[in-house]
Amino acid sequence: MKLLLKLSFTGQDFCGYQVQKNGRTVQKTLNDACLKLFGFPCDIAGCSRTDSGVHARVFYCTVTRQGTDSLDVSIDPSRIPLALNYHLKSDIAVSKAMFVGPDFHPRYSALSKTYRYLMRLSPVRDPFSEGSCWHVPYGTLPDATERMERALPYLLGQHDFSSFMAAGSKIEDPVRKVRDARLFRQDEQIVFEVSADGFLYHMVRIIAGTLVQIGAGQKEPEEMEKIILAKDRHAAGPTAPACGLYLWAVEYPHDVIPEDF
Amino acid sequence: MKLLLKLSFTGQDFCGYQVQKNGRTVQKTLNDACLKLFGFPCDIAGCSRTDSGVHARVFYCTVTRQGTDSLDVSIDPSRIPLALNYHLKSDIAVSKAMFVGPDFHPRYSALSKTYRYLMRLSPVRDPFSEGSCWHVPYGTLPDATERMERALPYLLGQHDFSSFMAAGSKIEDPVRKVRDARLFRQDEQIVFEVSADGFLYHMVRIIAGTLVQIGAGQKEPEEMEKIILAKDRHAAGPTAPACGLYLWAVEYPHDVIPEDF
Repeated sequence: MKLLLKLSFTGQDFCGYQVQKNGRTVQKTLNDACLKLFGFPCDIAGCSRTDSGVHARVFYCTVTRQGTDSLDVSIDPSRIPLALNYHLKSDIAVSKAMFVGPDFHPRYSALSKTYRYLMRLSPVRDPFSEGSCWHVPYGTLPDATERMERALPYLLGQHDFSSFMAAGSKIEDPVRKVRDARLFRQDEQIVFEVSADGFLYHMVRIIAGTLVQIGAGQKEPEEMEKIILAKDRHAAGPTAPACGLYLWAVEYPHDVIPEDF
Repeated sequence: MKLLLKLSFTGQDFCGYQVQKNGRTVQKTLNDACLKLFGFPCDIAGCSRTDSGVHARVFYCTVTRQGTDSLDVSIDPSRIPLALNYHLKSDIAVSKAMFVGPDFHPRYSALSKTYRYLMRLSPVRDPFSEGSCWHVPYGTLPDATERMERALPYLLGQHDFSSFMAAGSKIEDPVRKVRDARLFRQDEQIVFEVSADGFLYHMVRIIAGTLVQIGAGQKEPEEMEKIILAKDRHAAGPTAPACGLYLWAVEYPHDVIPEDF
């Protein structure tokens, strides 16, 4: 059996998820904590390769003994979150743990993922949003939210999203299926929420950057269709900063992972 | 005329409001920014002497030329927030500015103040609440919120709140009038909101510490009445940490300060 962890982290002080030579990463941090708790090196497999600075309201990963497909430990899974958190800093915490079968993979077993992108369109800074959303200080139109909303239906369904993929990405198949895309206000912030079967590199951030251009009147809402059809990164807007992006939910088959996990 | 500023700040990196010999304070930070913007030293008078680590969703202060009762500058008040923010770090920002008469004082002209205290009762840490609420990890009762709510009516009205005043405070009159006290859930957090004509030193934090004891079953909700009547700091619970406290609103007469300021 593999050990599945549900966790969350704020992105400011992480150089992303994946282990790298220099810099603190989520994977390495979990590797170190598991080594301390279990007493032997482990492999960590994550649900997503989040970028430097990106936050995760939820994140899933499996833990196995290094080089094997299972983790044989006698500790009760309900006690693992607190035991692991003892070895983790305050910007990352494990909330739940359970054992899953050897075929489960947090990335490939996922049915869909939901991201949120938080932005604040205002000339004035907000200390409480600092580092947790994109502050857009330049003048947007009074109907910015409505304009952005009108652009969303074009994203729905199965499309080649090459226009919203970071230049230089090596993805063989740039087709993804967007299940849901919506926009809502939360106090002073505008929240863009999007669910899909998978996402290309920087996809949500480039869509967010394009939406802000639409809100500011630099692009028309209806242009979203043309931008998608162009299959060209240059047709879309700039990549929005990492600080506004949150991995918000990951959906797994309910017969494998209970809904309340 | 005095210049009135509306601002907000996060408390983590401030040693409170008031100027002191060592340590970064809100008052000193504003003094420095005004000197840079206006070119001469100013006096800053604030609406509250918030403690080290306490946050302010709103905070009001007046700016006058040092040693005088007015500020004669030719800059349009609507341009002052952005101009001052240029000289302020990201944890403090001015959102509005207007001129007020010489009799106005941000502290003494206030009709009432509202504070919020945020707490999270859960064994598991939350990286997104870190530093912005009180994490209470020990086991509280399933009906903790209901128990706390039952204690609130005793706080309403005019009372001698000596039991909720930090030991050693030099306040001549410990009587305050609590206008409103309520509790509500916001996602995983419990928010305690209290409005009064004024507050004693540490009053909200000691009430919050007492409420958590009531939620945990260490005190009964009905004991709140006895605690107030005791007029003794030892009768109440511990002082809750500063990180959960927010100055949330300050009410001024609407004929002096417009409601939408």
